[in-house]
Amino acid sequence: MGTVLRNIRPVEPERRTIHARFEGKSFETISETRDLQTPNDQIIEGGGRLAFSGFVNAHTHLAMVAFRGLADDVPLHTWLEDHVWPLERLLEPEDVYWCTLLAIAEGIRSGTVAFADMYFHNDEIARAVEESGVRALLCYAAIAPSMQDRGRAEIDASVGIVDRWEGAADGRIRTAISLHALYTCGEDVWRAGIDAAADRGVPIHTHVAETRRETVEWREQTGMSPVMWLDRVGAFEVPLLAAHCVHVDEDDIAVLAERGAFIAHCPKSNAKLGSGIAPIAAMLDAGVHVAVGTDGAASNNRLDMLEEMRAVWMLQRASHEDPMTPSAAQVVELATENGRRALGLDPGGFVEGRPADVVLVDPDRLHATPDHDPTAMLAYASSGLDVTDVIVDGRVLMRNGDLLTIDEEKVKSEVNRLLRRLNT
Amino acid sequence: MGTVLRNIRPVEPERRTIHARFEGKSFETISETRDLQTPNDQIIEGGGRLAFSGFVNAHTHLAMVAFRGLADDVPLHTWLEDHVWPLERLLEPEDVYWCTLLAIAEGIRSGTVAFADMYFHNDEIARAVEESGVRALLCYAAIAPSMQDRGRAEIDASVGIVDRWEGAADGRIRTAISLHALYTCGEDVWRAGIDAAADRGVPIHTHVAETRRETVEWREQTGMSPVMWLDRVGAFEVPLLAAHCVHVDEDDIAVLAERGAFIAHCPKSNAKLGSGIAPIAAMLDAGVHVAVGTDGAASNNRLDMLEEMRAVWMLQRASHEDPMTPSAAQVVELATENGRRALGLDPGGFVEGRPADVVLVDPDRLHATPDHDPTAMLAYASSGLDVTDVIVDGRVLMRNGDLLTIDEEKVKSEVNRLLRRLNT
Repeated sequence: MGTVLRNIRPVEPERRTIHARFEGKSFETISETRDLQTPNDQIIEGGGRLAFSGFVNAHTHLAMVAFRGLADDVPLHTWLEDHVWPLERLLEPEDVYWCTLLAIAEGIRSGTVAFADMYFHNDEIARAVEESGVRALLCYAAIAPSMQDRGRAEIDASVGIVDRWEGAADGRIRTAISLHALYTCGEDVWRAGIDAAADRGVPIHTHVAETRRETVEWREQTGMSPVMWLDRVGAFEVPLLAAHCVHVDEDDIAVLAERGAFIAHCPKSNAKLGSGIAPIAAMLDAGVHVAVGTDGAASNNRLDMLEEMRAVWMLQRASHEDPMTPSAAQVVELATENGRRALGLDPGGFVEGRPADVVLVDPDRLHATPDHDPTAMLAYASSGLDVTDVIVDGRVLMRNGDLLTIDEEKVKSEVNRLLRRLNT
Repeated sequence: MGTVLRNIRPVEPERRTIHARFEGKSFETISETRDLQTPNDQIIEGGGRLAFSGFVNAHTHLAMVAFRGLADDVPLHTWLEDHVWPLERLLEPEDVYWCTLLAIAEGIRSGTVAFADMYFHNDEIARAVEESGVRALLCYAAIAPSMQDRGRAEIDASVGIVDRWEGAADGRIRTAISLHALYTCGEDVWRAGIDAAADRGVPIHTHVAETRRETVEWREQTGMSPVMWLDRVGAFEVPLLAAHCVHVDEDDIAVLAERGAFIAHCPKSNAKLGSGIAPIAAMLDAGVHVAVGTDGAASNNRLDMLEEMRAVWMLQRASHEDPMTPSAAQVVELATENGRRALGLDPGGFVEGRPADVVLVDPDRLHATPDHDPTAMLAYASSGLDVTDVIVDGRVLMRNGDLLTIDEEKVKSEVNRLLRRLNT
């Protein structure tokens, strides 16, 4: 038995209505005529909905939904040190499981099919990913001043996730080694992490140059920029997923481009925490691979990639007084295909043989009327809540607004119970 | 017969659950106990929803929803001259009526109770406002190089709206004189408009310093900034609602503060068209009255004040690298009470005697879980689509997601028919 998606309108420059059949995990037939199905096929009537391969959230801490709306309006370092870290110490594995499920549900509801997560209690996170049906790049973020001082245990924990989960859930789970940041891990810890990533053939996921203070202090301490330091310790010898990169200069950008780094641009979080505006237009000019992430919900406060896409163009165009960069088509590309590349996923799209990852968006909304152009509608007018259907790896995760793999009410009640326990 | 709103949670610093009764247009009783109603009262069960007086969209061109998604990604002057203006010439009064209704419906759906509109075919716009039940400040924007060259007719048209509509719809309709902009109206046209506004006791609504080019050229031509020029011609002798004010300097800001001007800050439109980032943090420091508007849907592409509020904090915090300004409470104030002041409305809020303007927002959404703080939820997490109920002047315009005064399907179909006629 296969599935036929009828009457969908791909979000692409050429305007067409297509029908797509998949059996198992990949598209078997893409056609502009209706007579696709074989007997016993399940039919999903698209009714002219917009269709694309789904958003990829290239940097997040899913379980941080627990801290959404808590301690807003403070700077990053205060927020981390005085608010977030003390609460995180109280989280049990089961808490992280429920919070991650809530975050995944929120992501599915707004059209996200894959997440690059960085957190702890990762076995529970992997279980949530496995059950919910999404794709994820998982990692445990090592934090240690040196290999002697907690470093060995932290690197082992990070490697443990790779060894236990790489390729799990039928390949939907991929893993990375993670060093939390330059300023939270000693050089020997970095070198051990890079070696482990190279050894296992997985990427590194880290935070780079998020705040001005961190970047200025790094230069004072080491005499070089965070990006140059990463280059010196060999971090670009493996695929590197670098969240933020707000405070990078022209030379840094040249290195990021040349070394093929993946940037996870998190504009809303950078705005909310007052971290700044990453030079994305310059990065795109230089050929840097830019993907988009929401960061955790505590600093966003949503996990809605449509909102994030809006933040990308708003901040770039406003700060550069340039109405053309990035274009609607560019931001859609950053939030979808560039994210797939950053997470090591096969390309998406309505092409035979490609993964059956599909998100449908209802165009028949007041706020999206009239219906001039699918790309513009997605980039400028649609809401994350207009997403009606989500298919990942050939499995339907949401159908007409109903989540099929996650018990939403149960998840909300478990998260609310946790919050009462933490007494926030 | 009165109406009792039960179990609502005001979006205010103190957290409380209240019950509110209104009969006619104003709140009669606000209470923290449930036993409010008299026999025959209609009961609206709030179920713990967030409640506030609704958003005020302080600058828009409602009927421009027709051009949503058309000619994106071009600079302001190209967009106006090559795309928007040629199409606007084809709009019939009836078209403007339907497009305005669609825009009002979109606004109601996302919690907007009042609009400052600037457009033409204003009698049809007034009819849409009257029927739909919202509040509006309406004006016809005069465009004329001099009083001899079209100016007399344009000013007469602008005055005609005031004379026909001021105070209509039981006071929900207010009017202004409008000069479209400094660069589109001659000095004598400006002086005539100011005299007319003073004479009739209404404000002026205009566009000021939206783009760098316009502002630089204005300085070259007149030797002074747009704000200083406005001061010289006496525009601040009447209440002035100045949209944009992106390219204003410290001296301009001091004048705007001293003269009590109202700024309609339109951050998304300014971003999308590459116009820049208005110095809102500095304006707030100087005590300028800042309200928030979406501008027209063609340059936004939404009329969603929640999205606009997000754009306010994102652009200010990111560009100033300051996570505290504006705060969640400040952006809510700008988008609600400051808008009321800018439009000359009575203050809102749950206080006996104040207008029964109420918007309810459902907090029980994945993307708003957990429920830490109502102000943070509104500023950071809620979506415009979480709005469930809208009451204006004691009349229920939306109940549990159903629009009661606008036939949404009819409106969409009329707007789509118009678009087919224009052959865009």
